[in-house]
Amino acid sequence: MRLFPAFLIFVSVSLSGYAQTDEEMLRKIYDEALTSSPVYENLHYLTKRIGHRLAGSTQAAAAVEYTRQLMEAYGFDTVFLQPVMVPHWVRGDKEQCRMLSALRGQDNLPVIALGNSVGTGPDGLTAEVVEVHDFDELKKLGRKQVAGKIVFFNRPFDYTLINTFRAYGDAVNQRGSGAIEAAKLGAVAVLVRSMASQVDDVPHTGSLHYADGVTKIPGVAISTRAADLLSATLKQDPELKIYIRTTCEYKGMVPSYNVIGQLNGSEKPDEYIVIGGHLDSWDVGEGAHDDGAGCMQSIEVLRLFKALGIRPHHTLRAVMFMNEENGLRGGRQYAAEAERNNEKHILAMESDRGGFTPRGFTLGDDKLLQKVKEWAALFAPYEIYEFQPGGGGADIGPLRKQGTKMVGFLPDSHRYFTLHHTANDVFEAVDKRELEMGAATMTALIYLLDKYGVE
Amino acid sequence: MRLFPAFLIFVSVSLSGYAQTDEEMLRKIYDEALTSSPVYENLHYLTKRIGHRLAGSTQAAAAVEYTRQLMEAYGFDTVFLQPVMVPHWVRGDKEQCRMLSALRGQDNLPVIALGNSVGTGPDGLTAEVVEVHDFDELKKLGRKQVAGKIVFFNRPFDYTLINTFRAYGDAVNQRGSGAIEAAKLGAVAVLVRSMASQVDDVPHTGSLHYADGVTKIPGVAISTRAADLLSATLKQDPELKIYIRTTCEYKGMVPSYNVIGQLNGSEKPDEYIVIGGHLDSWDVGEGAHDDGAGCMQSIEVLRLFKALGIRPHHTLRAVMFMNEENGLRGGRQYAAEAERNNEKHILAMESDRGGFTPRGFTLGDDKLLQKVKEWAALFAPYEIYEFQPGGGGADIGPLRKQGTKMVGFLPDSHRYFTLHHTANDVFEAVDKRELEMGAATMTALIYLLDKYGVE
Repeated sequence: MRLFPAFLIFVSVSLSGYAQTDEEMLRKIYDEALTSSPVYENLHYLTKRIGHRLAGSTQAAAAVEYTRQLMEAYGFDTVFLQPVMVPHWVRGDKEQCRMLSALRGQDNLPVIALGNSVGTGPDGLTAEVVEVHDFDELKKLGRKQVAGKIVFFNRPFDYTLINTFRAYGDAVNQRGSGAIEAAKLGAVAVLVRSMASQVDDVPHTGSLHYADGVTKIPGVAISTRAADLLSATLKQDPELKIYIRTTCEYKGMVPSYNVIGQLNGSEKPDEYIVIGGHLDSWDVGEGAHDDGAGCMQSIEVLRLFKALGIRPHHTLRAVMFMNEENGLRGGRQYAAEAERNNEKHILAMESDRGGFTPRGFTLGDDKLLQKVKEWAALFAPYEIYEFQPGGGGADIGPLRKQGTKMVGFLPDSHRYFTLHHTANDVFEAVDKRELEMGAATMTALIYLLDKYGVE
Repeated sequence: MRLFPAFLIFVSVSLSGYAQTDEEMLRKIYDEALTSSPVYENLHYLTKRIGHRLAGSTQAAAAVEYTRQLMEAYGFDTVFLQPVMVPHWVRGDKEQCRMLSALRGQDNLPVIALGNSVGTGPDGLTAEVVEVHDFDELKKLGRKQVAGKIVFFNRPFDYTLINTFRAYGDAVNQRGSGAIEAAKLGAVAVLVRSMASQVDDVPHTGSLHYADGVTKIPGVAISTRAADLLSATLKQDPELKIYIRTTCEYKGMVPSYNVIGQLNGSEKPDEYIVIGGHLDSWDVGEGAHDDGAGCMQSIEVLRLFKALGIRPHHTLRAVMFMNEENGLRGGRQYAAEAERNNEKHILAMESDRGGFTPRGFTLGDDKLLQKVKEWAALFAPYEIYEFQPGGGGADIGPLRKQGTKMVGFLPDSHRYFTLHHTANDVFEAVDKRELEMGAATMTALIYLLDKYGVE
């Protein structure tokens, strides 16, 4: 086994765009990450000493200061805060959701308010329920059957999709736009099946959107098992009612920051490569996988460059984006500032799919995808095989309009949607080696793209 | 992406040994496993209703009866118990280990007795400590520096090895044979650094061996963090002492069983394919990954064949081997019975590396490895890429002498040695989708090998 990669490299030097020294450098990157990396300890601080950190919260402010100090302590060439205004939304009291059925009596359902939602007010609301699985079904019902009711969106994940992000993508419009579509037909609230890859008792929050000119109605998510129970009970007792009480509230726009650390490029200092995650999280759990892991890994990429004495050709930036979860203000602000300052961003990589075992990358540009695939043999010793077309990440998305090439870090996805946006997304759900392997894998690709360019 | 596999198949039909219907059958196998499999619920019963189940324990007897009933309920063609005598070892009282240093006072170290170890007796033992990292270092010290002391084996895992089983393989002789080598030089006990892939407070048990004619001395493992503490303290205070108290005891040989379920082959019923795991576990935690997962997956392979109406060409057996952890009596008995009954076993697959995300397989036969690699494109949609030379598993090993080809199921290894043989190896550490994906992947390869043969 030990001879095999060496043989491959020998053949590849002339065929592919890399050299034997690259193989050695990747080995050094992984060795350093697996033996001497502080990435797991850093995540421990962020999750246990600071905790969850929704944009506008005191914890978000602490996380800004923590990551600024951390990057200063690592001696990056420049560390600075980029101001950005963010929405400040608060959850209020513990949410309540009760199913009131002549058949079953009262059942409390595990519930969580959706982010950005208005509250029901302190008295709550009670109404009949109409179950639908998509917007077409909702529209066919029409105003007559929807007005005055709670719309229950109950389309589950497709479990047969191997990458769970595809299942999430197929289901998530119920949560994101359900309140708009339901309100257009006179609904009083929406109840959404949690965006989860299994049936259990854990409710998942996540952002809900409103539209100008459409009444803002409250939205909550119930656990997948509660959704199955409600659906089954509705079949026997279509007149059952649901009581919901939430006191969430939008408190206006407040100042916050993206946090940026930089290593200056030696050959093309005016060309930027961004590696980032989002510093904010939902206000439950600890935002460990989403996206404390991605933030700590992004900082670790630059730390690994420094620790191994690799001077980047281009200027590298680790960017902690603020407010991905309920506004994307940080990502938009970063792109706007880059435009205003004429900073040419040639590449952006985001880690926002959790701190799980690395499997590979998604690449938004087909030529770049082909180029990266030529490096496959360099990654195989680390069990990295997935080089797929796909997006980079929400925060870096706004850079696309200046032609920046997008890369998404792709960890194993099987566990992500059991804890995404829940109270279970805590430090203990992150494995040290998996997190370190991810940071090393991100660094390895950044090393190659910085060295050989993205064209 | 959706078109790509179809294109590959078109090219491959003539090049490789599989057909488009195989692609469809694999899709059905994964779909069934991901939507309708009871494998996770079955593991819940085994771990939560029965619990840990060392050979000879009442729980081991319950696990035998549970898996017999389960396979009967699935309607396998034959289900039977194969008697085997197993050693009955008991842990006794909660172990104690205290570091007594003039410098630091007393520290209790997280400790666990090694399996098969003799006890210190109720009074415990106290002695000075000599630290070594391998048997050469021990032998160089010689009897003069070892006699009357506790030998502290402190060689850590090599964290840079990507597959953690290789790091385990490099370190485990300290635990397995340390007591023999230390006793030869007059040591009174051995203290072993836990076989773990990170530094933490969790002690890991595992089997220790004795040799005829060598004094049996007690062996315990301390957590990796305690090992670091002890090593650092020894440098400042070489005369510190350690107090150990264990009351473990060997209670003699007792009857138990391998549990076997069978689907009869349609074309070559006299040729057997075994899929197995070991039903026993250490007597801490719940034996969830080691090896409840492998047992439940092995049964699931046969259930999936039945559920999908696949009649195997060869006779398939799911085998729950007894006593892998502290004797391997079940594996030896199975091979001996196969020999005695002239049962020709063409293939054996073991799942005993945990119920984590599947990455591929190890294959003990080079020609078979090449054959399986030709099926790589069939597995890629399921993110399965590793087809490596390597062993099958301890339980199926004794079949090798009749020429049986060996296959080891290879899940992701990063998390395994944080919980292996510890109180943390519980149901909650197993992910439902990861377990199902593993069962599907095992079934897919068995389907192909049964259909196309192993030559």
